[in-house]
Amino acid sequence: MTKFHSKFETELQVRPDDIDMNQHVHNTRYLDYVLAARYDQMERCYKMPMEEFISLGYGWVVNIAHVEYKRPLGLGDKIIVRTWIEAVVKDGVHVRFEILKKDNNKLSCDGYVHYTMVSLKTGRAEGIPEWITAKYSV
Amino acid sequence: MTKFHSKFETELQVRPDDIDMNQHVHNTRYLDYVLAARYDQMERCYKMPMEEFISLGYGWVVNIAHVEYKRPLGLGDKIIVRTWIEAVVKDGVHVRFEILKKDNNKLSCDGYVHYTMVSLKTGRAEGIPEWITAKYSV
Amino acid sequence: MTKFHSKFETELQVRPDDIDMNQHVHNTRYLDYVLAARYDQMERCYKMPMEEFISLGYGWVVNIAHVEYKRPLGLGDKIIVRTWIEAVVKDGVHVRFEILKKDNNKLSCDGYVHYTMVSLKTGRAEGIPEWITAKYSV
Amino acid sequence: MTKFHSKFETELQVRPDDIDMNQHVHNTRYLDYVLAARYDQMERCYKMPMEEFISLGYGWVVNIAHVEYKRPLGLGDKIIVRTWIEAVVKDGVHVRFEILKKDNNKLSCDGYVHYTMVSLKTGRAEGIPEWITAKYSV
Repeated sequence: MTKFHSKFETELQVRPDDIDMNQHVHNTRYLDYVLAARYDQMERCYKMPMEEFISLGYGWVVNIAHVEYKRPLGLGDKIIVRTWIEAVVKDGVHVRFEILKKDNNKLSCDGYVHYTMVSLKTGRAEGIPEWITAKYSV
Repeated sequence: MTKFHSKFETELQVRPDDIDMNQHVHNTRYLDYVLAARYDQMERCYKMPMEEFISLGYGWVVNIAHVEYKRPLGLGDKIIVRTWIEAVVKDGVHVRFEILKKDNNKLSCDGYVHYTMVSLKTGRAEGIPEWITAKYSV
Repeated sequence: MTKFHSKFETELQVRPDDIDMNQHVHNTRYLDYVLAARYDQMERCYKMPMEEFISLGYGWVVNIAHVEYKRPLGLGDKIIVRTWIEAVVKDGVHVRFEILKKDNNKLSCDGYVHYTMVSLKTGRAEGIPEWITAKYSV
Repeated sequence: MTKFHSKFETELQVRPDDIDMNQHVHNTRYLDYVLAARYDQMERCYKMPMEEFISLGYGWVVNIAHVEYKRPLGLGDKIIVRTWIEAVVKDGVHVRFEILKKDNNKLSCDGYVHYTMVSLKTGRAEGIPEWITAKYSV
């Protein structure tokens, strides 16, 4: 397990279909923003896009998701999704995230997602090879 | 092409996450209700569930979707999704639908969806075998 | 704060649009099932539907959401969403949930959601009146 | 009714949660891309953002939606959503759209959406004032 991990940022924009009856972003869409940011950062920052995992027969499944909501986002808001790996464990990664409203840099929500790496064939957890851990240790 | 096709009905309920910022069901969710009704009716009414198509290497893709909105649905509404095959053509089916609000039987929207049957391997349109046309000719 | 709270159950069915690229229910939709169950149970079990809160000028916002995924749900699955109030606090409720696959009664995921009651006018947290706490103490 | 209307473009990116069990963008999400493009273009191109309509007591509802699918979009695709007003009628606008995959400029789908302008108070169709028609006649 490595000690320090870089924080990466992805900029996104709220879509009108993300808004729910309370006139704010629907509470589950924040996790979809995190997912979009991870896909972007896997490719752009870790240099290992999801497609590469898939071609190796690996997939990632969400094991635990935890969100603490601070300030709601609304129609048209531009956001920064910051994520970083807190720890790489035997068969997964602990990822922390913060979503900020871009125009005032205020925290909208934060939390964490534990992902497990699985074999696409068996659906079972797989030990993460050293070389992938190395890629994730930036 | 057969001339008469049965109309089948599936009962569903609006979910809170279907409601958008206008306090009504989001306009695209009506098409998701039609999809849910088709899956239910493929299994229950045509006796050929989606899983059977997949195991034969077939899939269905939407070619055209057309919806005319009459009366919005809201939180908690129970609905009837009525669909029927208007025509089975060489490589697809023309399906018509009506969505009604259950408690007053009033039309919420209607329209049609043209589906094409594809080979899951090639992604290309496939001629529909006689025996499937027969199943769809109830 | 009351000590014992009833567990209530709502039966739902996975919709085809809930399935994501991994052929299972998308991870955020489980929280939408919990939302749907709470709305159903507020009306049916606590005898105080969401509409009544709204007409009193109250709303509920999600403060924390936490989900632990055990077994994925798939196309066509029927599910049981069991929720119960763990605690009513000054301005909110701690709700725990379990989602079970109906045909084998196995746990698909569990977790909790902390809701805060807000004034719809100000958007700020409101103390929960005694009589609402009483309704929630079944 | 004016004769010529500009075509405007908005660039968007497919989000992972848009992908469905067929590994392509879910068929209803294309309409959500059109909605996002219209909101962007109302503000940026017509100089009258949705918020201004709302503050004047006006809203827009979808009356008819029609989509013809040509080539599916997939994970990570960048897209161009081109929309233009085909006609401004008494109480609504006919909008045509094309969605193109950015990297090859090929058409993914096209179609139209008929929107009706409503009073937010009554929910009924409203005649569109001359000055709004003028704004829409670029």
